[in-house]
Amino acid sequence: MQRVRMNVECVPCLQRQAIEAMRMGRVDDESTERILRAAIGALSAMQWNERPPILAQRIHALLRDHLGYDPYYGIKKRCNESALELYPVLASTVSSSQDPLVSAVRIAIAGNIIDFGPTSDFDFEGTVKDFLTRPFALDGTPELKTSLEDASSVLLLADNAGEIVCDRLLIETIHETYGVSDVRVAIKGGPILNDATEEDWRDVGFNELGYCTPLRVGNGEMTSGIPRESNAFRHVMDSYDTVIAKGQGNYEMLSENEDIFFLLTPKCPVLAESVGAPVGSLVCTRGHKSTR
Amino acid sequence: MQRVRMNVECVPCLQRQAIEAMRMGRVDDESTERILRAAIGALSAMQWNERPPILAQRIHALLRDHLGYDPYYGIKKRCNESALELYPVLASTVSSSQDPLVSAVRIAIAGNIIDFGPTSDFDFEGTVKDFLTRPFALDGTPELKTSLEDASSVLLLADNAGEIVCDRLLIETIHETYGVSDVRVAIKGGPILNDATEEDWRDVGFNELGYCTPLRVGNGEMTSGIPRESNAFRHVMDSYDTVIAKGQGNYEMLSENEDIFFLLTPKCPVLAESVGAPVGSLVCTRGHKSTR
Repeated sequence: MQRVRMNVECVPCLQRQAIEAMRMGRVDDESTERILRAAIGALSAMQWNERPPILAQRIHALLRDHLGYDPYYGIKKRCNESALELYPVLASTVSSSQDPLVSAVRIAIAGNIIDFGPTSDFDFEGTVKDFLTRPFALDGTPELKTSLEDASSVLLLADNAGEIVCDRLLIETIHETYGVSDVRVAIKGGPILNDATEEDWRDVGFNELGYCTPLRVGNGEMTSGIPRESNAFRHVMDSYDTVIAKGQGNYEMLSENEDIFFLLTPKCPVLAESVGAPVGSLVCTRGHKSTR
Repeated sequence: MQRVRMNVECVPCLQRQAIEAMRMGRVDDESTERILRAAIGALSAMQWNERPPILAQRIHALLRDHLGYDPYYGIKKRCNESALELYPVLASTVSSSQDPLVSAVRIAIAGNIIDFGPTSDFDFEGTVKDFLTRPFALDGTPELKTSLEDASSVLLLADNAGEIVCDRLLIETIHETYGVSDVRVAIKGGPILNDATEEDWRDVGFNELGYCTPLRVGNGEMTSGIPRESNAFRHVMDSYDTVIAKGQGNYEMLSENEDIFFLLTPKCPVLAESVGAPVGSLVCTRGHKSTR
């Protein structure tokens, strides 16, 4: 696959995201205008032929710096809590399923709907119900199964708070079905947007799974962790038998790596065109050149 | 009603509109980025506590200046043609209706869906069908009828190309039902966005109605006509017995005038909140303070 580069459409979309974050945080109109002007100034000073998350990280960092607090903190906690409330029914859906892995994959992709970037208008429960039966737009699950059958280690790149509850269920299913007992979960080192961090990892009980350890990856913050686009991270990925990346941001950062399984639902037209599947569709794809 | 001022939400939306216009015009990516950067620079240099059309006019003028042509020209022609094709069936719907004026008002509001500003995703025929029966969100038609019963002159502020076909049907209905034989149609003096101009007025046959004359009003272009926000235009309005303003832009420019009948469907959340009716709803409202 090709590297995802930003479209000009991302420029107003990032501003819209910043405004939405400030509305959520009940920031007054005067400060909202001041911070939006700063965000516009930052966007104007940047090159736009970047991977979209790079610019998103800078805009959301600027937003947090100006506000002096993380506007997403509370909403991330609520997303984790809501998803945890559903966890028992999700877990029993998977364990009673004819094909637990595929059900867990479907639920993990449904969890990707929990986002406050491209859209904040989502219905997690409804999406789970829908995604449990709807056909895949791209179905890489047979290949994923083949990969997991031979795997003794798995690296999962997590995406958002809330969604990470579904990721835990996926990892538990992989552990139980394939006996994989060495799992690393890449979480973000800094609080950008609703990126899942080590706090979210603990909040949803990933730390209770003895076979799991976290790995801090970068999301634009100083010392936030190993950059996903670095050779160093490529070496980390190479040390795992199966690599699964959740969500749009990880796809945008890593789409040229053809040995990663991408699990996501495209959330905007720019990404949908790049993936080759419609906005809102169910995507499990390994990075074959043939999909583009 | 209060004067509509721009929300910060309008800032990214205007950029999105500019990108959409360039995509319609098949402008290459490099030029699109260059022109978007210019539009962002212009927005950054402006005060934002303006009526939204003022900024929209500047952005669309900048777009046309950079491109060297009007990206909306072709699409305006096609909108007029499509609406003219439907004109016979719309006219017979009105003439066979139990309440021709209200049917013509409903169709005129449905025509307001034809727009390339807040959204370019519209279905004119479907909206006409829907709007012929759906309840008004705000129903000022009884007052409009009362006003027209005593009227010998009407000023109509037209909005967009395509839509202006429905406006012609409304004016014909007013002429036949109430015998009003002095009608002025305010069209825009310059080609901004899909604003109806004198060319559109002629294209849809308004010039064939002997009781109609056009009036050029300003839309940000030099010498485009009398500014709607001016005292001079207030005097023009005062010389007509009934004043009808179509669409979001005219509402945004004139909402504090409480003797105008506004016919529109709100197309974005910012305007919907100001009008006090949902996005996509059917609005015929006279500017009473009590509606806010």
